[in-house]
Amino acid sequence: MIPTTWFTVTYRLQGTAEEARARADELRYEQTVEFPMDLTPEAIRETSVGRVVDTAPDPAGGQRVTIAYAPETAGNELTQFLNVVFGNTSIKPGVRVERFDLTPAMLAHYRGPRYGRAGLRAVLAAPTRPLLCTALKPMGLSARELAQHAYQFALGGIDIIKDDHGLADQSFSPFSERVRACVAAVQEANARTGYRSLYMPNVTASHGQVVERAHLAKAYGAGGVLISPGLSGFDTARHLADDDQLALPIMSHPALLGSFTAAPDNGFSHFALYGQLNRLAGIDAVVFPSWGGRFSFTRAECESIARGSIEPMGALAPIFPTPGGGMKRERVEEMLGAYGKDVIFLIGGDLHRPGPDLADNSRRFRDLVETYA
Amino acid sequence: MIPTTWFTVTYRLQGTAEEARARADELRYEQTVEFPMDLTPEAIRETSVGRVVDTAPDPAGGQRVTIAYAPETAGNELTQFLNVVFGNTSIKPGVRVERFDLTPAMLAHYRGPRYGRAGLRAVLAAPTRPLLCTALKPMGLSARELAQHAYQFALGGIDIIKDDHGLADQSFSPFSERVRACVAAVQEANARTGYRSLYMPNVTASHGQVVERAHLAKAYGAGGVLISPGLSGFDTARHLADDDQLALPIMSHPALLGSFTAAPDNGFSHFALYGQLNRLAGIDAVVFPSWGGRFSFTRAECESIARGSIEPMGALAPIFPTPGGGMKRERVEEMLGAYGKDVIFLIGGDLHRPGPDLADNSRRFRDLVETYA
Repeated sequence: MIPTTWFTVTYRLQGTAEEARARADELRYEQTVEFPMDLTPEAIRETSVGRVVDTAPDPAGGQRVTIAYAPETAGNELTQFLNVVFGNTSIKPGVRVERFDLTPAMLAHYRGPRYGRAGLRAVLAAPTRPLLCTALKPMGLSARELAQHAYQFALGGIDIIKDDHGLADQSFSPFSERVRACVAAVQEANARTGYRSLYMPNVTASHGQVVERAHLAKAYGAGGVLISPGLSGFDTARHLADDDQLALPIMSHPALLGSFTAAPDNGFSHFALYGQLNRLAGIDAVVFPSWGGRFSFTRAECESIARGSIEPMGALAPIFPTPGGGMKRERVEEMLGAYGKDVIFLIGGDLHRPGPDLADNSRRFRDLVETYA
Repeated sequence: MIPTTWFTVTYRLQGTAEEARARADELRYEQTVEFPMDLTPEAIRETSVGRVVDTAPDPAGGQRVTIAYAPETAGNELTQFLNVVFGNTSIKPGVRVERFDLTPAMLAHYRGPRYGRAGLRAVLAAPTRPLLCTALKPMGLSARELAQHAYQFALGGIDIIKDDHGLADQSFSPFSERVRACVAAVQEANARTGYRSLYMPNVTASHGQVVERAHLAKAYGAGGVLISPGLSGFDTARHLADDDQLALPIMSHPALLGSFTAAPDNGFSHFALYGQLNRLAGIDAVVFPSWGGRFSFTRAECESIARGSIEPMGALAPIFPTPGGGMKRERVEEMLGAYGKDVIFLIGGDLHRPGPDLADNSRRFRDLVETYA
């Protein structure tokens, strides 16, 4: 009997059904007590060791094994939850996390996205159409030059103008100077257009600097923040999302997360990593490289992220898939077919491609998405 | 000409020399400006885009490509350094980080390990012999029961008694209660034995809790702390290491880091991840699963970690390889052959195997390593 209060993690294990059953037996110990089975006291086995719920062949190969864990093992902290889900087992080949399912009682400990799809749409006054996002780049430009770009993008109607994830606090464009300049530029453009474009600076930083930069950004009038959970840790993102004094939309970037999906038989599924986990961490819009660009995610993997961004997770709001990584104008139609209209198109280099008039280049994207309102 | 102030990262790329050259050209843009080559202004190319230093066939297959980056791109933050090293490229198959080489000027921004090998040996009054470590487990025991174990381990002469990495702040053994009980137990044993055993609680926690728990541990008299950088982010470990008010030895655990070495052609080499990066983050002793246990690292991979823990890195102190993951008494001789005496043997379940007298089981390990003084 598995208590109904336990949460489950579904793994894909390589090997035959018999091998998978043996490995699942190791796994449920490895992820909890990390202690030899025969030496674990009966009482601890009852309270703390995971239990195999189900084993079935996976159409993608190997076996799909669901293990239930006592909520006490994860202790209501995202760091320890991740540790129970995959801590030690990440070091073993042939095991991938496909999905996790928390109970309502556990989900109640996670606030989740503060804005989500509906909240971000309300802020942007864009109730139905696809949204547009771009990144300020290239790295090496001054704060002033980046602000000039930001002005042009906002003038052309890009909804979210974020820092490129590589802009931190470098000498060529110090954080404070950049944020002030870009906020002013976007506000000025908004005053002209009547749009509500948001500027989201990158607050991925040293442990002691993240919260400080986010609050500085808020004080300067930024409309949201960008963070890379792979660099900062997922709980740092959650910390920002739960900060009632900050209360800004949060976008995540996949930097350094790639290795979690690089091996087909290790790491996390795209669904679990970019969908479920980002949402649990309170991210409002999750950036990932769409199929057909410079990266190698497949269409099916991208669609699974979109599913993970909306599928029922207690009271946690659905979030915006934000496909990027080589996004082009001529792909909008195809991508809408996969993601639907609840999507943020992240267009980087291609907004510079048609010529130096960034406002005009942006306007043409804006006109395009407005036809899908 | 590549400026001497630039740092280098050596990658292993899959494919032929010609393919590797083309990919290296993409990589140096992807990791810096993330902008189309033809649209990148000449001045930015000069200041901010990485440059290929060298390409050569790798004996392990593929090509070894060294790319130099301007120090300004990494901006003296560990998060942004990691982003330049592997942020976006982590999402591309067929690229692995083999090693990185910082310039003396950059290394000067990293304090590195506060104790390192020499410091930890001084604290433990163990100038030459291999050191011993164990983990308090299984999860599910009460603080009082774990403290009883800690007492026995210390009585038997285990140098470092750490929390199992899955002990956080769960209801069965709350952090504060556990740390007080275990510190008292180890101090009592030390008073009897004259040894200097250290208790290191796990401070991996929510973003806002890590520093608080570490300082609480210090206030209670803990002799060091354990952190899992894969869960908390590497810079959180560095933050603790650099904290002059804390000033405790830091041990790292590999939880969730496994996916970075799971694919042979993605992620990081064991040398770079467990050796170089842990050291740059200020870790004094790095736990990893040794070959021949429950995990799958090879002997060569483990030896490369040991090399990474000592090879010249500016003024950064050498650190202790801490092999675990199924360590047994009968393997000590073989492991000394690989690691030398500058090693911490992490023995978990096997300290419980011979019988319920944990002090006696520990004493036999201690007697064994003392023969290698």
